[in-house]
Amino acid sequence: MNRSMIRYILGHVMRIECILMLLPCVVALYYKEHQGFYYLLIAGISGLIGCLLTILKPKDTIIYLKEGCIITGLSWIIMSFIGSIPFYITGEIPNFVDALFETVSGFTTTGSSILNNVEALSHTALFWRSFTHWIGGMGVLVFLLAVIPMGGGSNINIMKAESPGPSVGKLVPKMKSSAMILYVIYFVITTIEVIFLLLGGMTLFESLTLSFGTAGTGGFGIMNDSFVSYSPYIQWVATIFMLLFGINFNAYYFLLFRNIKEFFMEEVKYYLLIVGVSTAIIFLHVINIYKSVATALRHSAFQVATIITTTGFASTDFDKWHSSCKFILVILMFIGACAGSTGGGIKVSRIVILVKSIGKGFASYIHPRIVKKVKFEGRPVEHEIVRSINVYLITYIVLFVASMFLVSIEGYDLTTSFTSVAATLNNIGPGLEKVGPTCNFSFYKPITKFVLMFDMLAGRLELFPMLLIFHPTIIKDFFTTSMKKKGFTNNLKTSK
Amino acid sequence: MNRSMIRYILGHVMRIECILMLLPCVVALYYKEHQGFYYLLIAGISGLIGCLLTILKPKDTIIYLKEGCIITGLSWIIMSFIGSIPFYITGEIPNFVDALFETVSGFTTTGSSILNNVEALSHTALFWRSFTHWIGGMGVLVFLLAVIPMGGGSNINIMKAESPGPSVGKLVPKMKSSAMILYVIYFVITTIEVIFLLLGGMTLFESLTLSFGTAGTGGFGIMNDSFVSYSPYIQWVATIFMLLFGINFNAYYFLLFRNIKEFFMEEVKYYLLIVGVSTAIIFLHVINIYKSVATALRHSAFQVATIITTTGFASTDFDKWHSSCKFILVILMFIGACAGSTGGGIKVSRIVILVKSIGKGFASYIHPRIVKKVKFEGRPVEHEIVRSINVYLITYIVLFVASMFLVSIEGYDLTTSFTSVAATLNNIGPGLEKVGPTCNFSFYKPITKFVLMFDMLAGRLELFPMLLIFHPTIIKDFFTTSMKKKGFTNNLKTSK
Repeated sequence: MNRSMIRYILGHVMRIECILMLLPCVVALYYKEHQGFYYLLIAGISGLIGCLLTILKPKDTIIYLKEGCIITGLSWIIMSFIGSIPFYITGEIPNFVDALFETVSGFTTTGSSILNNVEALSHTALFWRSFTHWIGGMGVLVFLLAVIPMGGGSNINIMKAESPGPSVGKLVPKMKSSAMILYVIYFVITTIEVIFLLLGGMTLFESLTLSFGTAGTGGFGIMNDSFVSYSPYIQWVATIFMLLFGINFNAYYFLLFRNIKEFFMEEVKYYLLIVGVSTAIIFLHVINIYKSVATALRHSAFQVATIITTTGFASTDFDKWHSSCKFILVILMFIGACAGSTGGGIKVSRIVILVKSIGKGFASYIHPRIVKKVKFEGRPVEHEIVRSINVYLITYIVLFVASMFLVSIEGYDLTTSFTSVAATLNNIGPGLEKVGPTCNFSFYKPITKFVLMFDMLAGRLELFPMLLIFHPTIIKDFFTTSMKKKGFTNNLKTSK
Repeated sequence: MNRSMIRYILGHVMRIECILMLLPCVVALYYKEHQGFYYLLIAGISGLIGCLLTILKPKDTIIYLKEGCIITGLSWIIMSFIGSIPFYITGEIPNFVDALFETVSGFTTTGSSILNNVEALSHTALFWRSFTHWIGGMGVLVFLLAVIPMGGGSNINIMKAESPGPSVGKLVPKMKSSAMILYVIYFVITTIEVIFLLLGGMTLFESLTLSFGTAGTGGFGIMNDSFVSYSPYIQWVATIFMLLFGINFNAYYFLLFRNIKEFFMEEVKYYLLIVGVSTAIIFLHVINIYKSVATALRHSAFQVATIITTTGFASTDFDKWHSSCKFILVILMFIGACAGSTGGGIKVSRIVILVKSIGKGFASYIHPRIVKKVKFEGRPVEHEIVRSINVYLITYIVLFVASMFLVSIEGYDLTTSFTSVAATLNNIGPGLEKVGPTCNFSFYKPITKFVLMFDMLAGRLELFPMLLIFHPTIIKDFFTTSMKKKGFTNNLKTSK
């Protein structure tokens, strides 16, 4: 276990958080809010500790996949912890567990809130709250890879642990450049959204916060009614940008540097198909509820976009819709967005590969001797990928069931418990019934909130990085003082 | 496609149903109920058609897996169709779709009912209704294999299609003897239960019908309140026998012909562990609801047994329990009983292998280069079996989601829709809310009832035999007049 490298990278993460936290200080300065001082204080402390941790550069910069996972898991926990302190010490969220819940929900781009009255927050807090979405959307470690010369050729193991999707492909041979390209695309599309929102008559503050929420597919808004009171234009802009941020970012790279045909990757096609069909079915169901066809279409498209991309805004109270519409939304919660996007859920590519493998099941009955490989994006899918997707699915189900059992101890109805876990594990935000779009998560006991925070982190980091931190072998490995090499040999022996 | 063999075996199935239907006629004779004539009439017609279909014995008796599946799927549909006619023409279930639903529910050992007043039925109807559970529990084609000399060495393909579990092992080298042994064990345990119930003061009629319901892990009772009004002794007898019928029948064979250590197969151990832990948790939750510790324990054990074995009796209205108890019951619905038992659900062995494969996921992060095989029953599980279990799981989920969408169109709450599908696809019987233990399925529209019937059949036959009947390749294959050999070559070509 390369502990010095873990220490070193965590130090860098704290330094980055220091810099990022200066932005809400600027907002505080502009709006003359005293809360800014607290943000400055925490930023300073974070930066100081970060600098101390990064004084000594490790000699051995090699990171294996397990270290990549541990670094990622711990980074996200530390980031959330530091990020929550300002909410707590400013007194804007007086309960620390709630402050932590809100920050974890922010960084993981979940958007589940414990706040009854969002509008009572200062501009500084609202900005920081939304900005955590933007940071979490693309991932802070990807950012680290983009800006800091890390050395060593194994940084892909960090990217693997933090990036969503069944497999990570480098866009260009150098990891650093790949990370940079992703952040540039992310920054540019966010800026375009800000411009569109400004054109709709919003202030810069509103445009920025809402764009952060959309870009990270997070879901924190700055109004108590989320998107309900915004104009149809603003709702349509948000719908389109949510959908854009749910697309695999590789597709944008292909669009820029190759051609439009490559933009329409198989995953993107299926994603758009699912969005289209779901919107159409829901539209036909709700057409009678709303005054005009345009309104019905807008609300259908908005809700489908917000749920499949796991953003979690709401333009209407969909908990009042017909149960087959709600069921479609629940299914979209699980499907989620494309791999390599900022969205959560199981991911379209995994779903497509899983569903295609059913065909293999039929084939084994019809022609037992023929071995067929599942094809995706024009290539046969490697057995190793299929296996890892299956393991992902099973782990996902087990984690879901365990979480739901723990949540159900509080005794609320099954739909509430079910959608609480679904909304957090898939990084969506609102669920149904007691955690529906007009409600929030404040009523849960602290222990349940910790379960849901774990689910948010596990969901954002695709399960294994978070689970590995609690794996006995890893814990033992981390705390043994033996040399890395010796430790590795021991592990090899015990696992045989 | 060996169509003459399909015709031949379906003919035999109808002949067997003729004989089986004579039993309710005996009951009618004893209770002097006129309904018996109708049963005799249908038995006669079924027998006559069956004889006509079996006049010509096919020259080619070889059956491939796909024919095994088609035979099984069609047999169960025809059996259910014929079995439902007496309910309809006697006027005891005046709606034909309802009669069919009740019969499918009977044969598939589901036990979901559309009857508001079970006690109004004649003894003849009650007997036939419960007897369908007993027939369906072990499977009519297994019976066929046990009693009729079929010729050809490929009968295992029928057994594979009808028997529950991820893999079928022959107990003894000869298929016929294996089938015979299973039926003897089945018959003997049922008889022992009848004796125990008679000792509890029940009439022979009551003992027989309830034993059929328990043995097939079906769940049809003869009282409107299921098991609520029976004595604690009767409830305990039922609890124990439900659990016994949920055990892999191979274990009984090992117990009889080898030793007690082999009885406790890995699957049986996990099954008993799950039962024990679930009962304990529920007991601790409900201890305050009931008058005495003994009552609380009895109801906890009864409900756990009835749900995990997918029987579906009820000794109390568990829909009123705390939501974490209900959640445990919902999870047990999916786990189901052991493979090779009469119970439904996903099966303990599949769940164990799936959960064990998570360990492989962790290993791939900790030591990417080490390849571990999942072990079960002391042996490494073949890659092929793991693959087929994964495909089963995905197919199961897709079928579940599709069914739930179709059911949710009726607009009832999500828990009702969810547990309606869960209760039928896992062959349990009652669900929660509107289909809870004190309610029934009569309120659904005919189209929804057909969806649920399909789920019951698909659940009982482990998905593929029912799905294959509707597979385009199979339908095309069935209706093309070309020679078997030519057809097979064509298929080989097209599937490449």
